[in-house]
Amino acid sequence: MRNGFPAEQNVVVMTRPEADAIALVRRPLKRMASDEARLRILSAGICGTDLHLVRWNAWAASAYRPPFALGHEFCAEVVETGESVLHVRPSDRVVAETHLACGHCRQCRANRRHTCENLQVFSRLDRGAFADYAVVPAALLRRVPEGVTPALASLFEPLGIAVRAASVGDAAGKSLLVTGCGPIGLLTVAVARAYGAHRIVVSDVVRHRLELALQLGADVAIDVSQQALRDGIEGEHIDVAIDASGNSRAINEALACVTTGGQLILTGMPEEAVSLDLARHVLLREVAIRGLYGRLIDETWLAAERLMTAPQFDLAPIITHRFALTEFAQAFACAKSGLAGKVLFHIAD
Amino acid sequence: MRNGFPAEQNVVVMTRPEADAIALVRRPLKRMASDEARLRILSAGICGTDLHLVRWNAWAASAYRPPFALGHEFCAEVVETGESVLHVRPSDRVVAETHLACGHCRQCRANRRHTCENLQVFSRLDRGAFADYAVVPAALLRRVPEGVTPALASLFEPLGIAVRAASVGDAAGKSLLVTGCGPIGLLTVAVARAYGAHRIVVSDVVRHRLELALQLGADVAIDVSQQALRDGIEGEHIDVAIDASGNSRAINEALACVTTGGQLILTGMPEEAVSLDLARHVLLREVAIRGLYGRLIDETWLAAERLMTAPQFDLAPIITHRFALTEFAQAFACAKSGLAGKVLFHIAD
Amino acid sequence: MRNGFPAEQNVVVMTRPEADAIALVRRPLKRMASDEARLRILSAGICGTDLHLVRWNAWAASAYRPPFALGHEFCAEVVETGESVLHVRPSDRVVAETHLACGHCRQCRANRRHTCENLQVFSRLDRGAFADYAVVPAALLRRVPEGVTPALASLFEPLGIAVRAASVGDAAGKSLLVTGCGPIGLLTVAVARAYGAHRIVVSDVVRHRLELALQLGADVAIDVSQQALRDGIEGEHIDVAIDASGNSRAINEALACVTTGGQLILTGMPEEAVSLDLARHVLLREVAIRGLYGRLIDETWLAAERLMTAPQFDLAPIITHRFALTEFAQAFACAKSGLAGKVLFHIAD
Amino acid sequence: MRNGFPAEQNVVVMTRPEADAIALVRRPLKRMASDEARLRILSAGICGTDLHLVRWNAWAASAYRPPFALGHEFCAEVVETGESVLHVRPSDRVVAETHLACGHCRQCRANRRHTCENLQVFSRLDRGAFADYAVVPAALLRRVPEGVTPALASLFEPLGIAVRAASVGDAAGKSLLVTGCGPIGLLTVAVARAYGAHRIVVSDVVRHRLELALQLGADVAIDVSQQALRDGIEGEHIDVAIDASGNSRAINEALACVTTGGQLILTGMPEEAVSLDLARHVLLREVAIRGLYGRLIDETWLAAERLMTAPQFDLAPIITHRFALTEFAQAFACAKSGLAGKVLFHIAD
Repeated sequence: MRNGFPAEQNVVVMTRPEADAIALVRRPLKRMASDEARLRILSAGICGTDLHLVRWNAWAASAYRPPFALGHEFCAEVVETGESVLHVRPSDRVVAETHLACGHCRQCRANRRHTCENLQVFSRLDRGAFADYAVVPAALLRRVPEGVTPALASLFEPLGIAVRAASVGDAAGKSLLVTGCGPIGLLTVAVARAYGAHRIVVSDVVRHRLELALQLGADVAIDVSQQALRDGIEGEHIDVAIDASGNSRAINEALACVTTGGQLILTGMPEEAVSLDLARHVLLREVAIRGLYGRLIDETWLAAERLMTAPQFDLAPIITHRFALTEFAQAFACAKSGLAGKVLFHIAD
Repeated sequence: MRNGFPAEQNVVVMTRPEADAIALVRRPLKRMASDEARLRILSAGICGTDLHLVRWNAWAASAYRPPFALGHEFCAEVVETGESVLHVRPSDRVVAETHLACGHCRQCRANRRHTCENLQVFSRLDRGAFADYAVVPAALLRRVPEGVTPALASLFEPLGIAVRAASVGDAAGKSLLVTGCGPIGLLTVAVARAYGAHRIVVSDVVRHRLELALQLGADVAIDVSQQALRDGIEGEHIDVAIDASGNSRAINEALACVTTGGQLILTGMPEEAVSLDLARHVLLREVAIRGLYGRLIDETWLAAERLMTAPQFDLAPIITHRFALTEFAQAFACAKSGLAGKVLFHIAD
Repeated sequence: MRNGFPAEQNVVVMTRPEADAIALVRRPLKRMASDEARLRILSAGICGTDLHLVRWNAWAASAYRPPFALGHEFCAEVVETGESVLHVRPSDRVVAETHLACGHCRQCRANRRHTCENLQVFSRLDRGAFADYAVVPAALLRRVPEGVTPALASLFEPLGIAVRAASVGDAAGKSLLVTGCGPIGLLTVAVARAYGAHRIVVSDVVRHRLELALQLGADVAIDVSQQALRDGIEGEHIDVAIDASGNSRAINEALACVTTGGQLILTGMPEEAVSLDLARHVLLREVAIRGLYGRLIDETWLAAERLMTAPQFDLAPIITHRFALTEFAQAFACAKSGLAGKVLFHIAD
Repeated sequence: MRNGFPAEQNVVVMTRPEADAIALVRRPLKRMASDEARLRILSAGICGTDLHLVRWNAWAASAYRPPFALGHEFCAEVVETGESVLHVRPSDRVVAETHLACGHCRQCRANRRHTCENLQVFSRLDRGAFADYAVVPAALLRRVPEGVTPALASLFEPLGIAVRAASVGDAAGKSLLVTGCGPIGLLTVAVARAYGAHRIVVSDVVRHRLELALQLGADVAIDVSQQALRDGIEGEHIDVAIDASGNSRAINEALACVTTGGQLILTGMPEEAVSLDLARHVLLREVAIRGLYGRLIDETWLAAERLMTAPQFDLAPIITHRFALTEFAQAFACAKSGLAGKVLFHIAD
């Protein structure tokens, strides 16, 4: 023990540069710099990025060097802070923004810190949150509002993408199409509903996810393994489509379904180039296409904090599975199945 | 003669459904409905749409039935008005919006009359302006501001596309890339310069057009037959790219050149689907893509009218060739060459 | 009878240029022009404008000449249409926009038809809807969506002000203050709630109106006859204040309560000049002030039509009183009391 | 000497809490913290704020405690930097933002750092730039682009207000009215011209300032000591008015002159409450009112940096007077006269 903390802890680590090379290892606690905070992790969710890493796809191979600790969507308790840290204190419950901006580049100066030219990305820092403890740059931390449980608080980071999509789509009074009902799609449905969407149509190929979407506020669910998207939305006037699938066909169908003058917002990352009928839909019908990389720092967080405390905003149905760290193999299998909502590690109380 | 008009007139007509089936024919003057106006054409420009028709491409074949009169970018004098026409009068000099909206569909009610669901398009009405006289729905007509010559006034309609592109791109203080220096690209350069663009980079493969662009206010001209676009713009921070070429490669290169968080605006119509690296540029770098079909009715006209009367706004260099109606074959050959700026018919004084 | 209509009908008329000079008179049915429609009135609401007229205040005296028929917020059935009327037909249920734009002035061309320079205002046309029948320019009429009762449909016109206020205030996720809980304030609460407001604080001096506001979705109601507005909203971070009272003190207090960088939106008409601490609130704290004259034509109507058909959007509590035309004196007394919500004439079934 | 610097320096100091209590004093050089930089001042301008302080008005008395050094608009050379300072280095030429934001309050998190709730204001820090040397928090410093002289660079800070006003007013293609041709008004004219304003009308009571405005790009200058503003602008359609005077009458006249649906932007600080006809202009005519406190951090700086390097953007006429520090009395007299453009101290080469 050092300062009341154990000398070692459990950490889920990507051990080698190959698929499924994950293990639960014992590691000593990290040292902490003056601008960092030590956290006791309470709850942490598996993100799509974690799945890319575990699959060790081309992007992962190009950007990461094992071994490194996994996990960046979490809620934690601050247990120790560096000397220059002022805005969080021990015993605060916190969540973390994934991106650390430099503050001096052209993007930062243009108030676009989320696309900073020198962005440090949490998941590359080996500070993984699938662990008992983590040491994290304090600038990333935001206090959790009163009354939000650790499980729900661990949704803050992905919730931000949904909040931004609903804001860019100006959801109030609009009819929306959300293609892809993974966690980001489901969160988008919940936010769009809270933000006063008129109608929400969703599509996916997994019946369970479509049911979750209906539970979270969608009005119409289309199983595109059974019928064409266009047939399913017959009669709906779609103002804005939000693709959370990254699937090339879904993107094209969504583009075709949006009304003239509407918007297609992309939050799912396509794996390859996508061929689009720009003449018909973008030129002649003036559908605008926007992609969202991440949360605005910090407007999106402010909005997400408000939502999380709104009495009727309930994300509980999105959390479909909880595991202990020791069950990491089952947890990843569950998340990779494509059948779950959000899969969490419950780490501490 | 009827009411002082000749019984017959010259009209440039697309006579049969095949390429280059154009002829100068004698036609009787049309009858005029109560909401129409009879015009004596003074000047008329050859538009890209006219070239598509003369080439009789797939789009033309699907949308038009010869015989029909060509020409819709023009300046004319009103010589007679129907009884319900109040806002223009004989002897007024006028230009015409190409699109007639219904006023009752959802697009019209949403203040998007330029993409009306029941849009009537001038060039399909057989009211062609490559003629001595034309009868035109009066709702299309706008009076020409004092002091604008017929030749310059005949640029109003394409100028509107450029005005809208510069407005959507919020050109003031921005660095712009304009890919494609045909008439629309050249007009875009002129408007962006008038609207306070910081820097304007242009690209094309025709040296003469690049020189015209420099003359109209571009700062840097890149001959992409000689060097890669990216090499040419080295060091420029491109906030907004406006593609006026419709060329798939230009669109992709422009998308890659725009700074993170910037905009790609499309005004040139691609002939086929375009494959885009959405993940890299639209998702990760948040470049937004917008296409523009036409002028806003009527904000864009108001803006164009102001520009046309601004002392230092000079579009004269864009008009590189003038022909008589009888020289229609040479005029079309010139426009089709891709080497000219705007090609006009000078029809009356 | 002519065409199956009675030769005469009941109409509530302002008879002389003095306060309370209203009477129920028998009038022959009006003749109808080719661009008009004859309506059988089903339900009609008393508007603040009607009260100004009945009080015969300075504004009324300057703008109106008795005798004229009162009433412009209504729902009706089309019974006959002029020959050039295409978009509505007999048996359609309709409501009316109050303002008829010219379509040719600079405001109309700038897509601001609701502030047309040649605006014709319904209530000055002597086409009053507190009557059995009315003849109305067809361009003003919008069809009522399926399933909306005449009583609720007669709220469409004032609802539009609320829709526009909530849209300009970008209510989704925001904390709002609504000062003044007359019909416009109450409708604003209902729309802001439907559009996803985070918190809604209301103020008034009439307890019954505050209770209606809570019923329609407000979170906090402040009786400013009992406590200062600022004390009542302690701890709330007000992003946007919407004044629906026109009261000088309310406007000043609302301005002071809005957070730095927020908005003050005015929908209530002050009777005289208002003194504001521009330095402190508008310069140093950058609170923007916007006033709304009317509905956007026709975006606001589209949005209102959607809202009216939304399953959980219920304006019924706003309608607190219903009268027959013969009870016009009681109806106006009730509306003038300042204690009611919306007061309707129920005219036909 | 310490590190090659003199032990003492000249500083213009407000010595006592009374009007005109300014003196040139000898002071030792300040110590420098790890996040600060020591600057050798090259050029520094007298700002309206400095004049308020020297007049020792009510605001000054409430917010400042003499003695303190004056001057915050300057260009300087970095001569020494604290150990944690990375973005500027010795020999860099720099200018400073006046406001230092905390980064953690709600305004900062909402990307409104210029109205931070814990804002530190340069002029209250006793770091005055009317001096040979100053020690300044490095976070305030921005490098001067190549080729901008110290005299022009010292205009960066007030230029930012003008850039923001022209941006909020969306000047390109607009007709603007600028009331008040002091330095901020003159800079606004220059920026609006560079950003493509269609027409610029200015008003003032000082002929020399009106002439400067014409020289900087205004089209029409109205001497409101000779004729009413409204008479002077007859026929102009003013889209946006920018008041740089803070004068109550000017604000009211500007509000009345703006076209329906336009904007009134306030950059001049009124000394007392202003009475406005909100009903007529803000409600019925929908003129929006916005006040601007300061520059956006850092978008406005980016825009100003571009402008300063634009070949045809020339602010030289604005600098009408230059003095040595020893001539401080004449310099302040000149600035207080209301007849000058910008008055600078030329301090070093």
